[in-house]
Amino acid sequence: MSQSSVPVDTAHKILAEALGQVVLIRLRGGKVVRGRLKSYDIHLNIVLDDAEEEVVDSGWRKLGTVLIRGENIVVISPT
Amino acid sequence: MSQSSVPVDTAHKILAEALGQVVLIRLRGGKVVRGRLKSYDIHLNIVLDDAEEEVVDSGWRKLGTVLIRGENIVVISPT
Amino acid sequence: MSQSSVPVDTAHKILAEALGQVVLIRLRGGKVVRGRLKSYDIHLNIVLDDAEEEVVDSGWRKLGTVLIRGENIVVISPT
Amino acid sequence: MSQSSVPVDTAHKILAEALGQVVLIRLRGGKVVRGRLKSYDIHLNIVLDDAEEEVVDSGWRKLGTVLIRGENIVVISPT
Amino acid sequence: MSQSSVPVDTAHKILAEALGQVVLIRLRGGKVVRGRLKSYDIHLNIVLDDAEEEVVDSGWRKLGTVLIRGENIVVISPT
Amino acid sequence: MSQSSVPVDTAHKILAEALGQVVLIRLRGGKVVRGRLKSYDIHLNIVLDDAEEEVVDSGWRKLGTVLIRGENIVVISPT
Amino acid sequence: MSQSSVPVDTAHKILAEALGQVVLIRLRGGKVVRGRLKSYDIHLNIVLDDAEEEVVDSGWRKLGTVLIRGENIVVISPT
Repeated sequence: MSQSSVPVDTAHKILAEALGQVVLIRLRGGKVVRGRLKSYDIHLNIVLDDAEEEVVDSGWRKLGTVLIRGENIVVISPT
Repeated sequence: MSQSSVPVDTAHKILAEALGQVVLIRLRGGKVVRGRLKSYDIHLNIVLDDAEEEVVDSGWRKLGTVLIRGENIVVISPT
Repeated sequence: MSQSSVPVDTAHKILAEALGQVVLIRLRGGKVVRGRLKSYDIHLNIVLDDAEEEVVDSGWRKLGTVLIRGENIVVISPT
Repeated sequence: MSQSSVPVDTAHKILAEALGQVVLIRLRGGKVVRGRLKSYDIHLNIVLDDAEEEVVDSGWRKLGTVLIRGENIVVISPT
Repeated sequence: MSQSSVPVDTAHKILAEALGQVVLIRLRGGKVVRGRLKSYDIHLNIVLDDAEEEVVDSGWRKLGTVLIRGENIVVISPT
Repeated sequence: MSQSSVPVDTAHKILAEALGQVVLIRLRGGKVVRGRLKSYDIHLNIVLDDAEEEVVDSGWRKLGTVLIRGENIVVISPT
Repeated sequence: MSQSSVPVDTAHKILAEALGQVVLIRLRGGKVVRGRLKSYDIHLNIVLDDAEEEVVDSGWRKLGTVLIRGENIVVISPT
């Protein structure tokens, strides 16, 4: 397979399709945050509206709008 | 989606809007700091005035002005 | 051996062959995710459809479509 | 906000103002060091005079002059 | 010693000699994988055929073909 | 403060002054090594003669000459 | 001290002198490996012949020839 047939960035494609929808993000260290995907950038920095973080054994705690640094993100999952 | 339609940096947009307001910052390792956003830069280094750090089971401890290195920041949340 | 005889990227070859098949991915920190390989890119970012994550002592939990950041991946194993 | 309106480095501004004063530095891994800020550089390497490190449950232990590598610094706080 | 007398990459030489042979790879975090070296690249990404991972107190578990990201590799040992 | 007034590298200045003297080095992970500073380079790689490492509850163990990779160094302290 | 008086790489000098001799290498995470230094490169990747790894409370286990990725090395000590 030639190098040129590899897509430059598959990450941005799936994020573009998820704009305005709720996504679930798993961070390094295990923390999980979910919220409505407002924007993202080429560093995979993510802005979520109406974000919540998972609290062990207690459901979800409201965070409001959050900016998540891309390098701390392990998995992004549109829901 | 073409590469050119991806915003270069969504992080700076949300920070510009939060200047002068209280933001909550979660650091690598779990520590949480909050304070009034005084300035930031392209490395996402953050300066907070009237900063406080969360003390487990004891509320918040005053720190005054702090400089936080961007690479240690996981989540920034305007409040 | 001359530098020029080293393949630029063996990772993309094996991924190209696995497109549409189920792959098992081991992440930093030990978490294991499997799913059908939908796409990947030059950063080794991976998109899986019908993804599931391993739950210790409980089998697999459905995640749907997931985007996995390449730098968190340790081992990829076509099944 | 245009990219050009983002300051290049807010970190150096606050450090320039703190030269000669006591600063408190929190390192990765939780260790805390304080001392008089003698110099710093573009890597945020820091030199402190009359430095001390926090000893859990025992106050502060004298270190003398120390060079701290910038990449291990989480928070710098002028006091 | 002049800079020019340092070999550019000693890693690729030993890998070229081990192609088709069984190698043992120790990963960050302590996991050990072994298999027949099928290919490698300039990032030290490694593809093994007939790979197995060490299971504590239980010998080896078959993995089939695996792609190991180079940056997670600590030690490679031809056997 | 203009960018040009920031020293390029304050680390090398303090190391130049400490050549031939005993320095104490704290590594990532907490290990402490001391020895006579023989040389250093632009990566902050350090060579110590007559080096010793701290052994918990047992004083110091002799290491002889050691090369310490700069990126593992947290604090360097001339003594 | 002018920037130009800093040696580019003190690491390679000490390694050149240790070629063919036994060196002891401490890896990130605490593991210790020793062996005869066969070669190294500009990334500080190291190849050892007749290598052994330290086994806690059990002496040394033979590894044969090993390639150690430079970025996992903390301390190299000629013996």
